[in-house]
Amino acid sequence: MAGTGVGIGQVSLVALAIALIHCSRDHSVVVSALGFSVIGFAVTDALISRCGPSFIKIGLFGKDMSKIGKPVLPEAIGAVSAMVYIMIMFFYIPFIFYRYMVLDTVGGGDRNTSVEMNGWSKSSFPHNKLSEYLSSVLCLESTIVLGIFDDLFDLRWRHKFPLPAIAAIPLLLVYYVDFGVTYVLVPNFAKDLFQGKTLVDLGVGYYGYMAAMAIFCPNSINILAGVNGLEVGQSIVLASLSLINDLLYLTMGNESSRDSHLFSAVLIIPFLGVSSALYKWNRWPAKVFVGDTYCYFAGMVFAVVGILGHFSKTMLMLFIPQILNFIYSCPQLFNIVTCPRHRLPKFNEKDGLLYTSRVNLKENPPKRVFVPVLRILHFCKLIDLETDQDGTLVSCSNMTLINLVLVWFGPMREDKLCQLILKLQFAIGLLSLFGRHAVGAILFGHDNLWTIS
Amino acid sequence: MAGTGVGIGQVSLVALAIALIHCSRDHSVVVSALGFSVIGFAVTDALISRCGPSFIKIGLFGKDMSKIGKPVLPEAIGAVSAMVYIMIMFFYIPFIFYRYMVLDTVGGGDRNTSVEMNGWSKSSFPHNKLSEYLSSVLCLESTIVLGIFDDLFDLRWRHKFPLPAIAAIPLLLVYYVDFGVTYVLVPNFAKDLFQGKTLVDLGVGYYGYMAAMAIFCPNSINILAGVNGLEVGQSIVLASLSLINDLLYLTMGNESSRDSHLFSAVLIIPFLGVSSALYKWNRWPAKVFVGDTYCYFAGMVFAVVGILGHFSKTMLMLFIPQILNFIYSCPQLFNIVTCPRHRLPKFNEKDGLLYTSRVNLKENPPKRVFVPVLRILHFCKLIDLETDQDGTLVSCSNMTLINLVLVWFGPMREDKLCQLILKLQFAIGLLSLFGRHAVGAILFGHDNLWTIS
Repeated sequence: MAGTGVGIGQVSLVALAIALIHCSRDHSVVVSALGFSVIGFAVTDALISRCGPSFIKIGLFGKDMSKIGKPVLPEAIGAVSAMVYIMIMFFYIPFIFYRYMVLDTVGGGDRNTSVEMNGWSKSSFPHNKLSEYLSSVLCLESTIVLGIFDDLFDLRWRHKFPLPAIAAIPLLLVYYVDFGVTYVLVPNFAKDLFQGKTLVDLGVGYYGYMAAMAIFCPNSINILAGVNGLEVGQSIVLASLSLINDLLYLTMGNESSRDSHLFSAVLIIPFLGVSSALYKWNRWPAKVFVGDTYCYFAGMVFAVVGILGHFSKTMLMLFIPQILNFIYSCPQLFNIVTCPRHRLPKFNEKDGLLYTSRVNLKENPPKRVFVPVLRILHFCKLIDLETDQDGTLVSCSNMTLINLVLVWFGPMREDKLCQLILKLQFAIGLLSLFGRHAVGAILFGHDNLWTIS
Repeated sequence: MAGTGVGIGQVSLVALAIALIHCSRDHSVVVSALGFSVIGFAVTDALISRCGPSFIKIGLFGKDMSKIGKPVLPEAIGAVSAMVYIMIMFFYIPFIFYRYMVLDTVGGGDRNTSVEMNGWSKSSFPHNKLSEYLSSVLCLESTIVLGIFDDLFDLRWRHKFPLPAIAAIPLLLVYYVDFGVTYVLVPNFAKDLFQGKTLVDLGVGYYGYMAAMAIFCPNSINILAGVNGLEVGQSIVLASLSLINDLLYLTMGNESSRDSHLFSAVLIIPFLGVSSALYKWNRWPAKVFVGDTYCYFAGMVFAVVGILGHFSKTMLMLFIPQILNFIYSCPQLFNIVTCPRHRLPKFNEKDGLLYTSRVNLKENPPKRVFVPVLRILHFCKLIDLETDQDGTLVSCSNMTLINLVLVWFGPMREDKLCQLILKLQFAIGLLSLFGRHAVGAILFGHDNLWTIS
């Protein structure tokens, strides 16, 4: 197995990566990002092929419930891709700042000249950009450690809930120092509510909002999970959508927005590399499970990019399926309708298809006040509610996006289900981006990509 | 057990910490470092009291071989202190930069003013200091992840050996950008060898030296281990010595050296807090083991401080016992003399004392050419060599500093042994510091603490 791991394919991938990195000396950081992305893919792929047995040996494994025979697979393998990403980002730093390090650095002097060095001019090294970059990687690595602890110890919700916000402290601090923008735009139609103001200052509330985003993004990926390839798949879709948005700005945007979206592309492109390698192993039929580490890490990549790239609201639009999944899950999360330990779709060994999993409402009736809501949801085809002849509730489908898709489209094989959800996510994301730039421009009177006269 | 964890003691500790942090608003970052150190102690102490069973549950445990009945203790608990340190350092950032954030930040403007903001003046936020700080914490956190992987998977030497150097990349990059000093001073007596130069430029070699230091420091603490309290104890001694050196500069040094040593104190003081809490649990009779994570983390703290504080050579002088231990271990590390799996001192259940552990040289004779060396070492009382009547080698003491101390001072109880080694380390460290500032000044014609006229 180890022998087959490093084949001609991998060697040529690495060669391509080195070529891309070399090219980038004269060109753009995006080209070297592509190179590091390819290296990330190759290294992650090679490591995953070797790591599985070690993970199983120390007890990190799980059963794949949606397969015949419930095979045992290594769990938390996403930690490998996440750490490869961090290492890649370390090697990437000199390439990002190559221009400044070779042309502009004032260094190389004696200790005594350092006082003079500290009085850098505007043309010298962009320490603020380096701080942004370092704080991002630091935030991601802290999230990874949180994920590893969660994978190992199965932390309780109340313990792990605030931790991503702590991990985001360096990020928020850099935001405060470098940008400090806490204004939001008011849509034209709502201006009267704010005495005709176009901007409303949220002040400290804006930092609360960003901390909430750092908590939401990692967890939202973690709860839209349980089907082979879905965690990594949705992350890849989100990354691609985010990259499309970046490319729009990089090709058509103004100078200041270009900077933010270059930063975003620099973080997202290598992320796509390591995630694709993980997807290769996690897609149906899965050979490994990704674990909480990857979900937290992936979610935090988007939070970081959204916050320091100044498009946190656009980023949240890409998370609409995750937000809907969260809202849809709320009745069960808050125990208004009983919530079983697992809400995964049910696997039928006979036809190999996944069916909606159901809650028994006879044994565990929902809160009385919620019964009409359930009937309305059923009427709107948002759940599948089973009643007996006299109208008593018997069971309903579990309230997750995955089960809802099965309610809508009927039972299907696991890979088809995953593909369908990913396509939905991609379509909604594209629509959101269109809405953001087309409808947004109408609502706000202008858009930072173009201005309507 | 959980109930006793948060007592009046801990509440008053945290109250003291908050008071110290509050005072620091008007005073120095050192005062707030003390506050965060106290918080670090309280949090680490409380967490360790709760974490033990969870660690044992997932297989992170070990037997204490030097106790009657070989009790099972949780292993790798040092990961808790290390992560508390990282979180503490996150909360600490705003306090370090408080002055600049409140008085000097240009932020708070509209996105459109950001171009102007980027043209900061010298009086504005010290992004270079922030980069130094962030790269240090990033390097430490990467080292912690390496340690966690090693504790979990027992990584092979050839795999884990280069990893600390990768973790140090952000650090070396910041060094390159901010200082770029690759000169070393030539002692007066050696000036003739370098055509009378007082400075020699090591160029890229200096970065190799720093990377080597990042590899050496973590590993050197990891191999002077195996006695209750020794790993944490030596780290506390090293931190105290380093802090004494910092205080010398902070009170008597010039402006530029004061900056470096303030940076060092800022990192070391909270480290002392979390380490003291760990020591409380790991000292004889140990209730927890610290694991590789803590050893790597602690070693890297010193490497980081030495590199970015510009006193890596002074720092290495404090590591003389570790360096000697490494050199002394070499014959066994490189298998010239056979090296058993463990070289811990042998515990005698009858008298409760530790004795030197020995290698059987009859079954595993050493390389022939090394036999005279062994005899000379024995003659110099640097090993204990046993021979039979006709002079054939029977056994010798294992070549570690711990066994050597037992050869010199005879069998003793584990806590006495640990205390003795820590006292030796402290004494050698104090002498080194004295040598550095007194003899060093004579050798080099001047010292950066004072100048000999």
